[in-house]
Parts: sequence; structure tokens; C-alpha cells
Amino acid sequence: MKKVYVIGIGAGDPSDLTLRAIEAMRAVDVFFFMDKDGAGKENLIAFRQEVLTRAVPEASYRSVHATSPERPKDGRDYEKGIDWWRGERRRIFREMLSELGPEETGGFLIIGDPALYDGTTQILHELAAEGFEIDFEVVTGITSLQTLAARHRIPLNRIGEEITVTTARLLAETEPEKISNTLVMLDGRATFLHFKETDLYIYWGAYLGMEEEILIAGPLKEKADEIAETIETSRARQGWIMDAYLLRRP
Amino acid sequence: MKKVYVIGIGAGDPSDLTLRAIEAMRAVDVFFFMDKDGAGKENLIAFRQEVLTRAVPEASYRSVHATSPERPKDGRDYEKGIDWWRGERRRIFREMLSELGPEETGGFLIIGDPALYDGTTQILHELAAEGFEIDFEVVTGITSLQTLAARHRIPLNRIGEEITVTTARLLAETEPEKISNTLVMLDGRATFLHFKETDLYIYWGAYLGMEEEILIAGPLKEKADEIAETIETSRARQGWIMDAYLLRRP
Ligand SMILES: C[S@@+](CC[C@H](N)C(=O)[O-])C[C@H]1O[C@@H](n2cnc3c(N)ncnc32)[C@H](O)[C@@H]1O
Ligand SMILES: C[S@@+](CC[C@H](N)C(=O)[O-])C[C@H]1O[C@@H](n2cnc3c(N)ncnc32)[C@H](O)[C@@H]1O
Repeated sequence: MKKVYVIGIGAGDPSDLTLRAIEAMRAVDVFFFMDKDGAGKENLIAFRQEVLTRAVPEASYRSVHATSPERPKDGRDYEKGIDWWRGERRRIFREMLSELGPEETGGFLIIGDPALYDGTTQILHELAAEGFEIDFEVVTGITSLQTLAARHRIPLNRIGEEITVTTARLLAETEPEKISNTLVMLDGRATFLHFKETDLYIYWGAYLGMEEEILIAGPLKEKADEIAETIETSRARQGWIMDAYLLRRP
Repeated sequence: MKKVYVIGIGAGDPSDLTLRAIEAMRAVDVFFFMDKDGAGKENLIAFRQEVLTRAVPEASYRSVHATSPERPKDGRDYEKGIDWWRGERRRIFREMLSELGPEETGGFLIIGDPALYDGTTQILHELAAEGFEIDFEVVTGITSLQTLAARHRIPLNRIGEEITVTTARLLAETEPEKISNTLVMLDGRATFLHFKETDLYIYWGAYLGMEEEILIAGPLKEKADEIAETIETSRARQGWIMDAYLLRRP
């Protein structure tokens, strides 16, 4: 059976690597990368390379790269499109994994933690369900949300309160009254502007863990425009942006 | 100004330490421990000692211990009780921190990540607000929820879905229909039994990351009694239990 590690590598700083992640990376013969074309791709590759150099300086591994199929947009035939997309991802994974010799170990490097908005384990489960012989193990990593909280030195919860983790897309459909303690990922389009007239607080961060890291926090009323502008100017300067934030009722 | 690190050390396995956490631990002159009396205290101390031995084998640090005041129960005078409790925690922190020489660095070791259901940063903010001169930095750690997900090899979210993180106490007041993807901490009393007649799935773990680790998953209807029994027998055997779980609509 093919052995594969799915390894979380933190959001942007190689110091966030765990000992277990380093150990797993050192056991890997072939790393697999399936990236989306587009802005930020170069930086993603550079970060993973930095992590690999730190963990496996002797570079005793091979690498296999593939381009991720684009996820279909909403609209007519959406379901069909998603089926195609899933099948295509499985096909690419099978092809990549065929590079693995019988006694070899494979590895996927995942930004943050593999359990948070990442499809790799899902694809591996689908392959296993199809009868593909694979033994995979998940190695946790520090998520961007944890780095956000640490940099702002805030708890993610408050005593006796729930935490919601959501996407910008779901946030856009949420009633302002329903928000009390909500973490938002997959934005980059300043969806918090919808809530500018509420009394929510925002704790925002971009390029978390990286040299370019930016942090802004305060009442949303006062900070929303400043953050939206920062997103635009940063994207123009860097060519890409990744941000995450907490919206919190005072 | 006194420098203090609040360091996440993972839920139960020293391999989950990050490089940054190890570096911070090596910079610490005095570690501060404020523990609750009761079941599990010994194990907590043993785990932190294991982590310290791994990170700072030459043991070049001092340790200061204090007993955490008990949090008041609900009831009459609850607000007053909480005020007293907070003040008491600040007083104990001041006392502990007075052990720190002018050029020295202090450290708190936090199970999991300091941002998740831990009061240490809150107390330090309160002290700073009172004018206590302190410069503190938060170092992320792998949470028990991430270890739970990794061991079950599941994503915490599903595509386009929210994640809720909550406590057993809040869960007990939640309508079953409101649960779609909910992570539960601070239980130990099998609160999931309330939802035994629903079609929810459970992914449950105890002693995560430790030698005693137990994992059970499946339809709640089929697994609830087995897990509840496991909690009872494990607590009887070990003298304590810590568990966490995900409830998910199929
Ligand atoms: C596909 S999700 C993957 C999340 C990742 N698995 C994690 O644990 O953080 C990508 C989203 O994560 C967040 N993110 C990841 N890295 C980040 C960083 N360095 N700074 C800010 N946000 C980041 C952003 O919200 C981004 O849209
Ligand atoms: C006071 S909270 C602290 C959480 C911690 N800061 C974290 O990030 O995981 C304690 C709760 O965390 C969960 N927990 C912590 N360590 C655990 C472990 N090793 N196994 C299972 N659950 C654990 C349990 O739900 C427990 O009641």
C-alpha cells in the first residue's frame, strides 16, 4: 500500500512547523503539488520551498507538480460541473501518485492545517472509496486563524461563548444580528463592508506570518474603509493578498 | 518592562510543539503555573514536564506554582463572585510575576492553543489595563480540535459550510435542528446523549495525542451509548478524562 502524509505547514512562517511535520517531511520521497493558476501562486511555491529548505536541507526528495482544475462557478449545470471537477481532481491525483514506487512515501504540503478549507484529504478518501490502495496520515499545522489571534493577542472565544468559522460567501448572506464572534476566511474582497453600520469590532490580518504581515483592529465603523483600502493597495503592490478576520460584538 | 511568553504546547503529544514554541521556551527564565486542584492535575503537570524536557533538556529555568481559585458556580451573587474570581486571578498573577528579575523572561505553558478556552491572555490584558508593566507575546499551539480532525482524517468544515466551536454547556441548550457541524469542548459528561435520537454523526476523541488516546466515530444513534460507557470506564481507570468531539449532519 502506498503511504502518504498530508502535512500542515502553518500559514506563512516556517517557525510554525511542528516537530511531527518536520519528521514526516523527512520521511517523504516524493512531494505532490497541485496548484491553481493565478495570483499568489509564486508566493505559495516560495513559502513551501522555504519550509522544505528548513525541514529537509539536504533536499533528498523528488517533486511532482500538477495544475488544479478550476472549480465550476454557480449557475446552470452546477451539479454536473462539480461532478466533473471532482473526477478530474481524482484523475490528477492518481496520475501524480503513480510516480510513487512501491516502498516509497508521498507527501502533500498544506498551508495552515489540512482540516480547514482544504480538499486534499477529501480527494484521498474518494480515491480509497474507489479501491485505490492508499494509506494516508494527517499531520496538523498552525492555521491562519490561530496566527491571527496570536498576533492580536486575543482569545478566539470569550468565556462561555461560541465561535463560528465561516467563508466570505456565507458571511455575505448573514444577518448582522446573527454575528457575535465570527472568523472569516476566503475573502480578499472586504465583505466586512456589508456590516460597516453595525457596532461590531474587527480584528484583521493579511499575509499572516510573513514579512509583509499587516494587522488592523478596532471598531468596524472606524476601520472598515482603512482596511478595504489596505486590501486594494496591498493587492496592487504584491499582486495578491490573503486575509482573515474576526468580527466580534463588543 | 517584563517580557512574558504565553506558549501553546499542543494537546498531548510533545511532537506537536512548533519550532517557535521551542525557541520561546528556551528563552524563558521562569515558568509560571497556575493549576486547578482536582482530577487530571497530575497528568497535566506530567505532560508539561515532558514538553519541557524535550524543549529545554538542560532545564535552565526556575518554576513558580500557584493554585487557581475556583470559578464561582451560577446562582445568586454570580456577578459578584466572578468579580472576586477575576481579582483573585490578577492578584495571584502579580505575585507570581514578582518572581521575575528586571532582565528576565517569563513563560506560561498552555495546553493546545492559548486562544481557545484559556484565560491567561485575558488576565495579562487586565493587568496591563491596571498599569502593570508587562510586554507579552502569544505563541500558537496545535489545539485538541485539530488533533481530533487529524486522527479521524476529516475536514473540520465541509465545502461551503460553517464550523461552530462550542462548550458542552451551550450545546445542552441547543436545538438539534440547529446543529450541522459543531465542535464541542469542555464536556466529559456525554452531553451528546441529548441528541441520541437525531441522525447526527459523531467523531469523538479522548486523551488526544497521548498514549491513552481513544477514538470512536459513527452515527450517534449507534455510538452514543458506547462512547458514554467508554467515558465512564476510562474516568474510573485513569482518574480523569478530557474529550472533544464533532457533531455533524450527514
Ligand atoms: C483555502 S483556505 C486554507 C486555509 C488553511 N488550511 C489554514 O488552515 O489557514 C485559504 C484562506 O486561508 C486564509 N489564509 C491562509 N493563509 C493566510 C495568511 N498567511 N494570511 C492571512 N490569511 C491566510 C485566507 O482567508 C485564505 O483565503
Ligand atoms: C480549557 S479547554 C482548553 C483547550 C485548549 N486550549 C486547546 O487548544 O485545545 C480544555 C478542553 O479542551 C479539550 N482538550 C484539551 N486537551 C485534550 C486532549 N488531549 N484530548 C481531548 N480533549 C482535549 C477538552 O474538551 C477539554 O475539556
